[in-house]
Amino acid sequence: MYVKNCWYVAAWDKEVPAEGFLTRTVCDIPLVLWRDDKGEVVVMEDRCCHRGAPLSLGRKEGGNCVRCMYHGLVFDRSGQCVSAPAQKAIPPSLKVRSFAAVESHRWVWIWMGAAEEADASLIPDTHLLDDPAWKSRDGYIHYDVNYLLITDNLLDFSHLPFLHPTTLGGSTDYAAVLPTVERRSRSLMLKKVVRDTEAPGYSRKFGDYPADTKVDRWMFYEFLVPGVLLMDAGMVPAGMPFDDGRREKAIEFRGFQALTPEREGSTHYFFAHAHNFLTDQPEVTDAIHQGVITAFEEDREMIMGQHRNLALDPGFKMQPLTVDAALGQFRWLIDSLIRKETAKARDAA
Amino acid sequence: MYVKNCWYVAAWDKEVPAEGFLTRTVCDIPLVLWRDDKGEVVVMEDRCCHRGAPLSLGRKEGGNCVRCMYHGLVFDRSGQCVSAPAQKAIPPSLKVRSFAAVESHRWVWIWMGAAEEADASLIPDTHLLDDPAWKSRDGYIHYDVNYLLITDNLLDFSHLPFLHPTTLGGSTDYAAVLPTVERRSRSLMLKKVVRDTEAPGYSRKFGDYPADTKVDRWMFYEFLVPGVLLMDAGMVPAGMPFDDGRREKAIEFRGFQALTPEREGSTHYFFAHAHNFLTDQPEVTDAIHQGVITAFEEDREMIMGQHRNLALDPGFKMQPLTVDAALGQFRWLIDSLIRKETAKARDAA
Amino acid sequence: MYVKNCWYVAAWDKEVPAEGFLTRTVCDIPLVLWRDDKGEVVVMEDRCCHRGAPLSLGRKEGGNCVRCMYHGLVFDRSGQCVSAPAQKAIPPSLKVRSFAAVESHRWVWIWMGAAEEADASLIPDTHLLDDPAWKSRDGYIHYDVNYLLITDNLLDFSHLPFLHPTTLGGSTDYAAVLPTVERRSRSLMLKKVVRDTEAPGYSRKFGDYPADTKVDRWMFYEFLVPGVLLMDAGMVPAGMPFDDGRREKAIEFRGFQALTPEREGSTHYFFAHAHNFLTDQPEVTDAIHQGVITAFEEDREMIMGQHRNLALDPGFKMQPLTVDAALGQFRWLIDSLIRKETAKARDAA
Repeated sequence: MYVKNCWYVAAWDKEVPAEGFLTRTVCDIPLVLWRDDKGEVVVMEDRCCHRGAPLSLGRKEGGNCVRCMYHGLVFDRSGQCVSAPAQKAIPPSLKVRSFAAVESHRWVWIWMGAAEEADASLIPDTHLLDDPAWKSRDGYIHYDVNYLLITDNLLDFSHLPFLHPTTLGGSTDYAAVLPTVERRSRSLMLKKVVRDTEAPGYSRKFGDYPADTKVDRWMFYEFLVPGVLLMDAGMVPAGMPFDDGRREKAIEFRGFQALTPEREGSTHYFFAHAHNFLTDQPEVTDAIHQGVITAFEEDREMIMGQHRNLALDPGFKMQPLTVDAALGQFRWLIDSLIRKETAKARDAA
Repeated sequence: MYVKNCWYVAAWDKEVPAEGFLTRTVCDIPLVLWRDDKGEVVVMEDRCCHRGAPLSLGRKEGGNCVRCMYHGLVFDRSGQCVSAPAQKAIPPSLKVRSFAAVESHRWVWIWMGAAEEADASLIPDTHLLDDPAWKSRDGYIHYDVNYLLITDNLLDFSHLPFLHPTTLGGSTDYAAVLPTVERRSRSLMLKKVVRDTEAPGYSRKFGDYPADTKVDRWMFYEFLVPGVLLMDAGMVPAGMPFDDGRREKAIEFRGFQALTPEREGSTHYFFAHAHNFLTDQPEVTDAIHQGVITAFEEDREMIMGQHRNLALDPGFKMQPLTVDAALGQFRWLIDSLIRKETAKARDAA
Repeated sequence: MYVKNCWYVAAWDKEVPAEGFLTRTVCDIPLVLWRDDKGEVVVMEDRCCHRGAPLSLGRKEGGNCVRCMYHGLVFDRSGQCVSAPAQKAIPPSLKVRSFAAVESHRWVWIWMGAAEEADASLIPDTHLLDDPAWKSRDGYIHYDVNYLLITDNLLDFSHLPFLHPTTLGGSTDYAAVLPTVERRSRSLMLKKVVRDTEAPGYSRKFGDYPADTKVDRWMFYEFLVPGVLLMDAGMVPAGMPFDDGRREKAIEFRGFQALTPEREGSTHYFFAHAHNFLTDQPEVTDAIHQGVITAFEEDREMIMGQHRNLALDPGFKMQPLTVDAALGQFRWLIDSLIRKETAKARDAA
């Protein structure tokens, strides 16, 4: 079960080719992504409505149509069949499902609910991903676990000093400080501030002060349904201001992370970690990106172990602790949206 | 669920060794195939009735018996246990199931229903497979899909120009011509004739006329339960006769294809594509065989994609089109035979 | 379903390191085995009670505690959480399950039932495994079948001449002699004596008499729940005494084998085959060990084939023969213990 009426990241923009197809499964549905003759992204079910063949084994025709190369049916960009060999009349029901898709600041977003209900105003703002003042690398990981084990991870940063001691983590006092959590209709706002603590390994070397200077760290982030994290994070020498826009001597990052369920047991993970200092030094951008990847591999090892453990005992009950406040609220938010959608579908039926 | 009371191809004759065993699973049943002291093929369940060990890990004894090498039981060719160490009396129920088997014109046929109901007159005629006037190579493919996705493929040749443009297919007008379909009690008869069309790539070069000469193509085939195709196909220069036995300037083939379910999700595919021209040139036979294999690999890629798509959504409904008339009838035929067998088994119980 | 209130072999003693962890799944439960500051073996569920992360990805702290490195919780050797970052009060329920464990004569035994009910007097006696008068090598095999297919194998040695003709087996008369079987509350006692028979390949060469001398063979063994075999086996020249302690000219072995279910479909197999002759020749010990491994690989091929055959037909019914007396009784014993434990758990609930 997934939330349908929300925007999922389906791809980095560069993944959808000018010619040819990108295939990707999202929420158990095989998708084919392609560009029409204006370069706009089209997203259709990659499953011919006739007998289920992949359209992605077919070919684009006339700039705005796709031909299934099993039996030759042609579909326009809305998914409607417009030509079928040996078929005198084409029934309107001969239609492949198409999805609302928007290309916005480097990411291709799709709405998994009914296309006519897609609300573009809900697309998260990632404009810094193509702002030249910020630099990052395009990240992608494929994960063989349910996406909620990864949202759990990102909604409780108390794990940083334990799981990421050399990269994102610092000293263990970081774990003892709880964030504030504000619930909105489709997201949570988290604010975590840890004062007078160690700088984390991956940013320590970039301050123009000794590496062992105590710092104040902040992580302000919105976590949107179904799993999009937009973060303002960084550090300043302890006692310097950072909360009101003045950020002298700050080492700042903007984090962009999107979790898209592929299937119940697998997840697409898109991410970038942008910085606005030393932006003329590609090796700095590379090093930051590499630090994030190292940390994410540490996460993966733990989460995969957790996944295997949960699979061994479907009856296992997690025990909620104080640090799990945001996790619990987020899972509740997802569940309540799914319940609403299920009830609405039942009423409509 | 499979039709039981019908003949399945279990093997090419050469696969069953004079000594030793061939193992093959058919309709979820592990089988061991061997030859008795007269060279006749014996087919038994490859699962000892004592504790389920594979008889194929045992050995032939005395020409007509098999010894299970786990606990030493000996079975005769009917499957009856005739010797068991430390067992004073051997119960008649200590019996491994044996199957009616017939070696006929290069193929080993087995009857998956009760052996006493096996009707040899129903064995399809493949005598051209050992007629020296026709040449072919022995083909076998193992497929990880249900066999009905492959029978679907073979019952609608409108896919040829799209899926096999360089081999079996020709111009797309070929797709627009529907075959006639005649239903018999255990098979369908299909006749497809396409006039004044392009010669397909794999036979174009064998006519004694320019390769771009327009041709009339015919495909006459019987498709027998559970999945045996016997085809008379070919081409003549457009306007020449071919339907009444006179076939001057014809390039003719006889197709033999047999689909045998291994399990619900896998299939044995035996095939040969015989020709009666240039039979003294082995390289021609090789080239024709290779062309068929190339086409079958094109089929496999599409059918595997279709299989994965169907697996993602068990509720997916195929939409029948005009071209699916034969497919629909064949699936109905299979279903009705299974229903009859199920009802008969229920009445007998 | 497994018997819980019994001792399982979890590891060879040397497998549990002085520092760090050994992980092993037993009866579907992931375990972490480690040594406390006195070197005693501690066995805990390798699944943090907070969110299921593996403790084995954590670290030992202070000699007697383990820290989960996901969110930093610390557990003492009883499994009780004693520290949690940002948690003001630690609930008593924040506890990882720990297991009764005893290191005894080379094997680490664990009790899979409630630790307070563990009865050390039930631990099988393997003291010859560290008796210098007996030599053996430490054996371990991982098996992808349910453990009962292997206990079946070990409870009917009529298979030896068929499956192990060159190692453990001798002439086929060996199969025709039935053992006596005595049922005890938690084990079976089997005694098999075969007189005037061939010496088996793996011990034939060690007698100080011609290799083709006829021998009397004995196999006396207790088979304890859930799957521990303790065997006194050997041979003497035919007619020499062996049953009353006097064993001149005897070639004697002591077999130790323990089957521990990992999951329903996989098994840990610990074994050693000790001898008391030529104990100053390591190559003799190696050769005996290698002979046993060769035989066990013969078993594995047959049992895996049996497993695949049974998986193809969940409704397959084994047919009991005279040789299966001990197998049947042992499976009955296991079932009755499971039934008792299930009833007791139901009453307690």
